Amino acid sequence: MVIVNVRDGATAGQISRAYTHGVLDRALPTGEILPADYALQHPQDWLDDSAIACREAIAQANVTPDQIIGIGVAFTSCTMLPTLRDGTPLCQIDRFARVPLAWPKLWKHHGAKDATDRINQIARERDEPWLARYGGSIGIEWFFPKILETLTDAPDVYDATEVWIEAGDWFVWQLTGELTRSTCQAGYKACWNKHTGFPSRDFFQAVHPKLTNVVSEKIPGTFNSPGRKSGGLSRNAATRFGLRENTPVSTAIIDAHAGVPGAGVASPSTMVMVIGTSSCHMMNSRIEALAAGIAGVVEDGILPGYFGYETGQASVGDAFNAVVRLLGSSHESLSREAAELPPGSNGVLALDWLNGCRTPLMDGRLSGAFVGMTLSTLPEQLYRATMEATAFGLRWICDTLRDAGVPVRRFVASGGLPRKSPLLMQIYADVLDAKIRPSASDEPVALGAAILGALAAGPEATGHASISQAIHAMARQREDVMYRPDLRARREYDRVYRLYRELAEKDGTVARVMRGLRSLPTEVSQEERGITPEPVAGADPHPEDEEEE
Amino acid sequence: MVIVNVRDGATAGQISRAYTHGVLDRALPTGEILPADYALQHPQDWLDDSAIACREAIAQANVTPDQIIGIGVAFTSCTMLPTLRDGTPLCQIDRFARVPLAWPKLWKHHGAKDATDRINQIARERDEPWLARYGGSIGIEWFFPKILETLTDAPDVYDATEVWIEAGDWFVWQLTGELTRSTCQAGYKACWNKHTGFPSRDFFQAVHPKLTNVVSEKIPGTFNSPGRKSGGLSRNAATRFGLRENTPVSTAIIDAHAGVPGAGVASPSTMVMVIGTSSCHMMNSRIEALAAGIAGVVEDGILPGYFGYETGQASVGDAFNAVVRLLGSSHESLSREAAELPPGSNGVLALDWLNGCRTPLMDGRLSGAFVGMTLSTLPEQLYRATMEATAFGLRWICDTLRDAGVPVRRFVASGGLPRKSPLLMQIYADVLDAKIRPSASDEPVALGAAILGALAAGPEATGHASISQAIHAMARQREDVMYRPDLRARREYDRVYRLYRELAEKDGTVARVMRGLRSLPTEVSQEERGITPEPVAGADPHPEDEEEE
Repeated sequence: MVIVNVRDGATAGQISRAYTHGVLDRALPTGEILPADYALQHPQDWLDDSAIACREAIAQANVTPDQIIGIGVAFTSCTMLPTLRDGTPLCQIDRFARVPLAWPKLWKHHGAKDATDRINQIARERDEPWLARYGGSIGIEWFFPKILETLTDAPDVYDATEVWIEAGDWFVWQLTGELTRSTCQAGYKACWNKHTGFPSRDFFQAVHPKLTNVVSEKIPGTFNSPGRKSGGLSRNAATRFGLRENTPVSTAIIDAHAGVPGAGVASPSTMVMVIGTSSCHMMNSRIEALAAGIAGVVEDGILPGYFGYETGQASVGDAFNAVVRLLGSSHESLSREAAELPPGSNGVLALDWLNGCRTPLMDGRLSGAFVGMTLSTLPEQLYRATMEATAFGLRWICDTLRDAGVPVRRFVASGGLPRKSPLLMQIYADVLDAKIRPSASDEPVALGAAILGALAAGPEATGHASISQAIHAMARQREDVMYRPDLRARREYDRVYRLYRELAEKDGTVARVMRGLRSLPTEVSQEERGITPEPVAGADPHPEDEEEE
Repeated sequence: MVIVNVRDGATAGQISRAYTHGVLDRALPTGEILPADYALQHPQDWLDDSAIACREAIAQANVTPDQIIGIGVAFTSCTMLPTLRDGTPLCQIDRFARVPLAWPKLWKHHGAKDATDRINQIARERDEPWLARYGGSIGIEWFFPKILETLTDAPDVYDATEVWIEAGDWFVWQLTGELTRSTCQAGYKACWNKHTGFPSRDFFQAVHPKLTNVVSEKIPGTFNSPGRKSGGLSRNAATRFGLRENTPVSTAIIDAHAGVPGAGVASPSTMVMVIGTSSCHMMNSRIEALAAGIAGVVEDGILPGYFGYETGQASVGDAFNAVVRLLGSSHESLSREAAELPPGSNGVLALDWLNGCRTPLMDGRLSGAFVGMTLSTLPEQLYRATMEATAFGLRWICDTLRDAGVPVRRFVASGGLPRKSPLLMQIYADVLDAKIRPSASDEPVALGAAILGALAAGPEATGHASISQAIHAMARQREDVMYRPDLRARREYDRVYRLYRELAEKDGTVARVMRGLRSLPTEVSQEERGITPEPVAGADPHPEDEEEE
């Protein structure tokens, strides 16, 4: 929760507060044990904990409610829930309180595997036109797989659901009383398009007869792009949050996507790289193009008037952490040694798919690899190779966009890692052959949401005549740091990148073997398998002579 | 140095003694600095240190010189040297004492890279018939590459050389005064064949005009198989070693190959696996077959009357050591954890080529790989995967032989690792789907040499009527330990082995990428490559707007 100055984006108050119930991935608050791939949240936390944080932030900022001219909401996605028509979450009705699938599913809830497969299969069979906007397949974390999972596994919950809704939209609904839907959330996670809407009734019927009218019957609401006003703060909510009634509330945006305005980026062709445990790379463009493996292209998805591209790498910081753990070392010492190595890590090449490959292969069965080890390979070679692999993965994403006709011209780095690892940023600059500017804000997502709140308040309230003016006034890149590509490193990385692409080929040997490895059994009991030698009573010491050729 | 009882092979005396000058890989005793890939030895050490060890072993065994009825010699190979006609090593002549290439080259001397390439290229162009006996290429450590290296890099030494000879043959020469050549050393390392001799004059002329008559002019001597008597101990040598004059001395054998009789194996189709830092797998067969990547098939190469097959894996224990170092752990803890994992190491697959691939790909540019890592992969998975990879490599060797029509029926394990790692042996049994019997002797190579000494002494002296009887009397496998394949593990390994073979494909993606990685620069200076961000004076905080699309 941040309170920022609408003139220059300066932080006036900033409060972090964990949700009271955190992530429900082992049991419901009522005690029911959850399956392994479940991740739920408590909807009351969203309201209660953010209200507390809001009051604390106002106190910290020492402002009056009147000075808060607008509210922006960035939310994880696709985090979604089933509610009644009045917005009551199903899990807050006695009848469903103990039913896990009546609770909000957090974005990383992974119970919808079969549902995802079914939806992708039917969409491919029917050659659904919207599928190409998502690079040819939709993800297990998305909106309709989560709905189908509930329909299949908890049909009572599905039947009782009057509204399926993204958590960000629900939150705005609770603040304003208006049921609007974000074009960002709907576009990236629910296969919605500005011109054609949701997938067709026929499609849903083919997936499951009971889904036929899901859109008309269970997904009400009007669409609004982030930065447009969904409504004014209700009296009830104003009281709860300690704010002024009727304060304009922007339509929600996906958290990562808020990082684009939050990094001070208003114009097209600048990729905003949010580099953390995983990476999300977002870019606006005037050009709409469809390319395999792009997680999504959504008109007005990030900022009004542009096609917003979302691409991602499933493990970046997570991969570095995993390698550090594997090597029994530390980031500090490995980074220090890795910095002394030349491009190409002295002949070690990695694939950065320790959590599968998102863009462009969209395949969770892929895994990590190291190639090129000799008897004298050092741990820092594996560490640097992993860094380089994430850089190659990013370059591949850029090449995929460019090959589809979408220019990628400039790079702004945001997220936790750019600050932690200058080495990583220099590798990215060398591999991309481009300058990289780190964003100035520590909290670009929260700042981006605040900017959207300012946009919702309108030019009269903010003094900023345009979206671009507001973004530039309130957010920027650092002035003291820029990473520039080194000419020689760049040329050397060209060679290593070609090897990376060869190794990473979509249906190549390595990908095939990785998929094969995923299909092996992993839970075999060891009991029957004696690894201590069995004494052999009276064995002939020359058994080779038993048989004659 | 061992003294063993000819009746039952029991060790009467056993002395290990390091060579006084060790391996000369940094400088000559005279101070000359050596290039990085040089590895030389001092010929005087071979005589002096083994004479001391011999006298100590006799004292330890408490026997009289009369009781020593025969002498066997196992020597590293191809360790070779240039001498005068009377056996004087060139390095012991004043004129050449400071010339590195006048010294004996140890087997692992790697200065002959260009020479090896040239010989292989000419042999292929001329379609030399002998090349197929070595799987299609000869190695950098072999006899003629080492000669050509000297001819090219030190022509004076080449011109002054009257005899090019294997160290084992030279040693026997010094003991007996007889210049014989071992069919083992000549067959495996000098492209010699019982029926056709050395490569032709025409071939050598094509390699280098000065090599034309190398065989007739500089490689004198008669051929003898190991276990045949080269001569009796000379008076001079008898005095030096404290032995009886005229004691029969067997023709030399390559050290690893002595491990076949030393493991109690006399009959064909039993593979003797010498598993240590690297592995050498040897087998006698009644069948001669030529297969790509087999390091050599030599008639009478190991035991008279059989075709001896030599195959190898360039890193086994070395690979485990490298992985332990990389993971910052210990063999003890990794082995303990690895033993709890199922076949397939929970989805991690390795390629065991950390020192290149010997059989069957014969390619030193190949390197190690790990595939299948996730964010939660544990160090023991990489460790076990490396063990499994060496097992798959061995199975591939067996499949290569079998595909060529050479049966492989039984397995005896020898070398240092079988004793150290029951887990490794169980994995080998499961992957090979075969029982594995460890050899009984701690020193199978020395015992094998002693058996050959007994054979040279003849049936009257030993009481053993046949070679097979002598081997069985003097050496055996352990009676208390045998590894048996587990049915389920075997089936699971079949699946993983197929993935290994897919990954390891000769000209497949991974091999291509590995060769590409070897051709990358590895010594780039880091100075020009600033990894700390450069401050940018007066940078526009919104540089993205500089350019318009």
